[in-house]
Amino acid sequence: MATGEKRKYKVIGTRPLRHDGVDKLTGRAQYGADIRLTGMLHGVVLRSPHAHAKIKSIDTSAAAALPGVRAICTSADFPDQVGRIVELGEGAVNMRHLSANVMAHDKALYKGHAVAAVAADSIHIAEEAAKLIKIDYEPLPPVMEVLGAMRDDAPLLNDDVRMTEMGTVKPETKPSNVAAKFLFTKGDVTAGFAKADIIIEREFRTATVHQGYIEPHNATVLWNADGKVTVWMSTQGTFTARQQTAELVGIAVSDVKVVPMEIGGGFGGKISVYLPPVAAILSRKSGKPVQIQMERAAVFEATGPTPGSFMRVKVGATRDGKIVAGEAWIAFEAGAFPGSPIAPGCMCVFSCYDIPDARVEGYDVCVNKPRSNAYRAPGSTQVAFAMETVVDEICEKLGVDAAEFRIKNGAKEGTRRVDGPVYHRIGMIETVEAIRDSEHYQSKLTGPNRGRGIATGFWFNAGLKSAVVATVNLDGTVSLIEGSTDIGGSRTGIAMQLAETLGIAAEAVKPQVADTDSIGYTDVTGGSRVTFATGIAAVEAAKEIQKQMVERAALLWEVDSASVKYEDGKVIGPAEKSFSFAELAAKIHEVGGAVIGHGTSSSAEQGGAFGTHCVDVEVDPDTGKVQILRYTIAQDAGTAIHPSYVEGQMQGGVVQGIGWALNEEYFYDDKGVMRNATFLDYRIPTCYDVPMIETIIVEVPDPAHPYGVRGVGEVPICPPPAAIANAIHAAVGVRMRDLPMSPPKVCAAVMQKK
Amino acid sequence: MATGEKRKYKVIGTRPLRHDGVDKLTGRAQYGADIRLTGMLHGVVLRSPHAHAKIKSIDTSAAAALPGVRAICTSADFPDQVGRIVELGEGAVNMRHLSANVMAHDKALYKGHAVAAVAADSIHIAEEAAKLIKIDYEPLPPVMEVLGAMRDDAPLLNDDVRMTEMGTVKPETKPSNVAAKFLFTKGDVTAGFAKADIIIEREFRTATVHQGYIEPHNATVLWNADGKVTVWMSTQGTFTARQQTAELVGIAVSDVKVVPMEIGGGFGGKISVYLPPVAAILSRKSGKPVQIQMERAAVFEATGPTPGSFMRVKVGATRDGKIVAGEAWIAFEAGAFPGSPIAPGCMCVFSCYDIPDARVEGYDVCVNKPRSNAYRAPGSTQVAFAMETVVDEICEKLGVDAAEFRIKNGAKEGTRRVDGPVYHRIGMIETVEAIRDSEHYQSKLTGPNRGRGIATGFWFNAGLKSAVVATVNLDGTVSLIEGSTDIGGSRTGIAMQLAETLGIAAEAVKPQVADTDSIGYTDVTGGSRVTFATGIAAVEAAKEIQKQMVERAALLWEVDSASVKYEDGKVIGPAEKSFSFAELAAKIHEVGGAVIGHGTSSSAEQGGAFGTHCVDVEVDPDTGKVQILRYTIAQDAGTAIHPSYVEGQMQGGVVQGIGWALNEEYFYDDKGVMRNATFLDYRIPTCYDVPMIETIIVEVPDPAHPYGVRGVGEVPICPPPAAIANAIHAAVGVRMRDLPMSPPKVCAAVMQKK
Repeated sequence: MATGEKRKYKVIGTRPLRHDGVDKLTGRAQYGADIRLTGMLHGVVLRSPHAHAKIKSIDTSAAAALPGVRAICTSADFPDQVGRIVELGEGAVNMRHLSANVMAHDKALYKGHAVAAVAADSIHIAEEAAKLIKIDYEPLPPVMEVLGAMRDDAPLLNDDVRMTEMGTVKPETKPSNVAAKFLFTKGDVTAGFAKADIIIEREFRTATVHQGYIEPHNATVLWNADGKVTVWMSTQGTFTARQQTAELVGIAVSDVKVVPMEIGGGFGGKISVYLPPVAAILSRKSGKPVQIQMERAAVFEATGPTPGSFMRVKVGATRDGKIVAGEAWIAFEAGAFPGSPIAPGCMCVFSCYDIPDARVEGYDVCVNKPRSNAYRAPGSTQVAFAMETVVDEICEKLGVDAAEFRIKNGAKEGTRRVDGPVYHRIGMIETVEAIRDSEHYQSKLTGPNRGRGIATGFWFNAGLKSAVVATVNLDGTVSLIEGSTDIGGSRTGIAMQLAETLGIAAEAVKPQVADTDSIGYTDVTGGSRVTFATGIAAVEAAKEIQKQMVERAALLWEVDSASVKYEDGKVIGPAEKSFSFAELAAKIHEVGGAVIGHGTSSSAEQGGAFGTHCVDVEVDPDTGKVQILRYTIAQDAGTAIHPSYVEGQMQGGVVQGIGWALNEEYFYDDKGVMRNATFLDYRIPTCYDVPMIETIIVEVPDPAHPYGVRGVGEVPICPPPAAIANAIHAAVGVRMRDLPMSPPKVCAAVMQKK
Repeated sequence: MATGEKRKYKVIGTRPLRHDGVDKLTGRAQYGADIRLTGMLHGVVLRSPHAHAKIKSIDTSAAAALPGVRAICTSADFPDQVGRIVELGEGAVNMRHLSANVMAHDKALYKGHAVAAVAADSIHIAEEAAKLIKIDYEPLPPVMEVLGAMRDDAPLLNDDVRMTEMGTVKPETKPSNVAAKFLFTKGDVTAGFAKADIIIEREFRTATVHQGYIEPHNATVLWNADGKVTVWMSTQGTFTARQQTAELVGIAVSDVKVVPMEIGGGFGGKISVYLPPVAAILSRKSGKPVQIQMERAAVFEATGPTPGSFMRVKVGATRDGKIVAGEAWIAFEAGAFPGSPIAPGCMCVFSCYDIPDARVEGYDVCVNKPRSNAYRAPGSTQVAFAMETVVDEICEKLGVDAAEFRIKNGAKEGTRRVDGPVYHRIGMIETVEAIRDSEHYQSKLTGPNRGRGIATGFWFNAGLKSAVVATVNLDGTVSLIEGSTDIGGSRTGIAMQLAETLGIAAEAVKPQVADTDSIGYTDVTGGSRVTFATGIAAVEAAKEIQKQMVERAALLWEVDSASVKYEDGKVIGPAEKSFSFAELAAKIHEVGGAVIGHGTSSSAEQGGAFGTHCVDVEVDPDTGKVQILRYTIAQDAGTAIHPSYVEGQMQGGVVQGIGWALNEEYFYDDKGVMRNATFLDYRIPTCYDVPMIETIIVEVPDPAHPYGVRGVGEVPICPPPAAIANAIHAAVGVRMRDLPMSPPKVCAAVMQKK
């Protein structure tokens, strides 16, 4: 439910049927695996059985001799990328690493690392052929944990990785597993702690966890005889996938066309490409289209989970409940190649509070796990777990209410973050107030082994680039094409903003996600940016349509267009002349061609999103099982375009956060082999594990968006582990500082306390 | 070869590889028949065995009971259209007739008329089921010929057809087969003929002929559960097909999305829809996608050939070779429903000449043949055959050179046509001069039974509406989407105009034809309008890109954009700053989002196109076979964008004209059954029948287009029958006035003369 404020808008804030709903309900939505092309081959990727091994030789001759095998590819088929750093939409990327992750070069760096691939007439022949590829490995000792990997005597994964400090490498730095160090400071942290009456310093660990999207990665690629490559795939960003694929196979970006299929979940994990360059090479070599689909085990073992971490957080406060200083030391497991979200982790750890003196030090560390990747507010959930349980402990020690403490110390407009930026209008405190005032928080929780916890979380929300083109149909509808792949309902959210601006019904807009040849450059669907940034582009497009509709009306009425205005879905001229949008749409061809509007947005800066969660748990002291009794989330959506979607994002994020908190982890044996790479053993929450998540939409409009939108997709995953840990403490008196808080760990902690 | 003038342009006038060439050469281009959808059914249309019959009842029960049959459709499934007149892009259409042509209502009006359709799990089941449909027909006498159909006692086809005169129906007009009368006059024709020293009046007949495109009609339709309909098809106009389909099944246009597949020829015959509404109804009833493909016999018997005709043309001239008056009486066979191109036929008959006094009367007449449709310069070839042989006879009688006579009497800027319009700059006389001065015309033709003829032809060329959207890629290429389906290479021709305007290479533009949801309204690919009108839209889009590129450069240089200009493919700023297009394209994202330009064109009026042909033939007097020895075409292309395409259009039009002249005809038995509905028996020219057609591109730029383009696709089909008839006369002294001039007819004429 949105807060009580009277609705300013006609379309925004309503809940129309989603435009893609019927297709998905009837099973007609086309996903990557549904593509069938004439003469299409099936590809299989052969993966390393070792977590760390030198690849001494690869003999593909027996596989190549198998009837029905059409092409084999190894790293030798990819262009050399040594030393290439390329700007890939969201940052500079080491292309050697990206390429070696797609297909191992001289070393396999994790179990499941791709080492070769086969395309054949059938999937069965391809699988058979993959088994015939002989690889001579020299196994090396793996290093599976971040602190171990930082030791000087740790096995070295990449001999071209030298630690950067805030982006630059000092001379004489030797190769190591530590790829990057970040340091952010604000004020004088020593002086700050000197003012504290209470200081809490704790260490935390979080496991590697996966996004767990339903749909495995897939790619179908045709490398045509003219050198043009078409890719059909499940991706969060067609243009990013296009560029990555082009760079990895060594052709121009405009020679690659990425056709977005429906996407069965991404959560950050479908930004990096894995299969398209491999399928492209196999298509080039075979002259036929090639389709590769990952199995679930490959998704776990060889795509990008969120990093495991080690964190030390220290917070000082005065007796009257004011935070005076904070210090954090954070190390994230990058996986096989550098690139963990350590920088945002460092920026987020103190981001919910107004702390005068702070210092954060962070490390990006390679270990023999798959290269980590974005997962909903990347890096923020880990640090929120650490910070928010320390805050809870301070509140406990000081005997102050956890909500009031957060309201007193909360970040607000004008607060400067440890990494520098100063917030403009944000709603952190409003979300805590919403929880504090909620029926849930005000209710009494009774019964043994039950407890309540709260926690707050933050995510930046990105702006980046989006493009939209919209065309008026004669029947008064508007066709809209956009470059943002639709994961969470953005077709509807963008259509609604266009509809609001034109003053027409949401249903009168027909949104469609276009391929990379058919729409302007659009950054990934990620960073909670789409409803914000693609929305801005849609509003721009609508304004251009307004302008043209005014001109057409002026031509029809034979009046000066300056005397005509667009207002409230109507075109109004002199002498009480007026057209509804649909009336005028039916006549536009009498005085011209198509009415087309386009809009782009670029780098508009979102204000950031905050959410505060409240959870009640019951702990079984005999088994350590934690049951979620009740869960309420209050989150600042700026302006909720489609409240059902906002609630869905909030609920989905919470459920993923609960899984991360209580059960999910990559469980490795001592050889670095993941032993639970199936959904039977890697336990994500089911409907038996979670109650209906209650939602409170807080609306503090973001002045950077014409309708005040803030992205809502990511921040709901941040607070759950901390909120649940705080609730467990309230229930059974133990502080859990190691994720997941699975039954064995909780049980052990309870036993130890007894 | 283009004329010698120094090239003004960098891209225009060159011959880059066609963008769709590799796809077509490798067989990867996707045509309508290549579409495969999950759960797709196959449809078969049951067609009338009678040329004229009342449908007393249809019993589908046995067919419905056949296992594997999923849906059956008859006219009862279509909404009632009685009295509906709808504006369909190029004119008002009687929807009752359009609907009854797609699926016969109470009467079958031609052999092959659709009466029912079945969708089943396989094409074999569907065929079997179609045979089980029992239809009780009451056969009626057919009327197969235009003059017979005009008689008062002729069998009446449609009881709702009453003759319109110049668009309106006089009171008390009774139903008849004559649907329309047109009358155009200029000056005083009686007074004109009084000035003549010589008057020639002749009667002509032409047969029904088909466009003969390689690819049969097809449609694959999914009527989704939300009421949205997607159509994949071969069409000359996605938006026209969208509207026709929507109107015929009774839903909103924006509920239909037409996805254009590659098109294997159209020539005017793929504008009307036949299969999409039927497949749509079958999909709605079955809940599954349905594909229907026509067999060749259905293409001949049930699509839209060009009308057979009867014509009487009378021309008067003075002794010194000046035409003083012209009169024509023309009747075209509309086929089963009104709508022959009788109006353009009337407008074209005297269009090549400056005739002071003229009168043209024309009739649109229903006969029991498939509803006629556009075929390359619809109506103009028939009348050119009549007029140009009369002109030849006048030249013969006066003893003047056929080229000089045409130059003396030719239409030029300022000439008023019999239907009213006054020509602006045209190139009729220049094409005759080009032929007169050609090596061919100047050469001596020797040998028995050999002769040379010339003839001139005209086509209006249309403007109508087009839309283009273009986006700059970071690698300096531009993606272009357009709504014009590409039959004759227009992707390349439009890309070249965009490239010329931007000063980049043709290959740097990536054109793509978009579906109706992805681009603004665009009229059919027809009327020789695409290179002209869609070209104008592309130039507009390029200019918008120029403007934005200038603004981006100004931002990058931090100068006022007024000090920056776009020139010759470069963006030039103050102090000798400059960017090439590609250099700036790589930097646009530093200062903004995507650079997108869109352009539309609407109703720009083309100047009209003319061509003059010269042909040498040899007639075998014993068999009547006419062999084409040499053929040269000179045609005004305004400005030839891609000369190879222009030549290809000229050659293709000539070859179709040769087929029409010598062999092609619908051969009916006395029951109105076409006896030659296969390509074995309906004889279109093969490479054994025609020499290499020599081409002379004349370039008289059309001031209505920024680069002077005139459409070139249609006019080349107009002169061949007349030119060949004139050549036959020169060879063996007989005047052929009945098309086709097939061996039996020529033989009979030669025998009779002897």
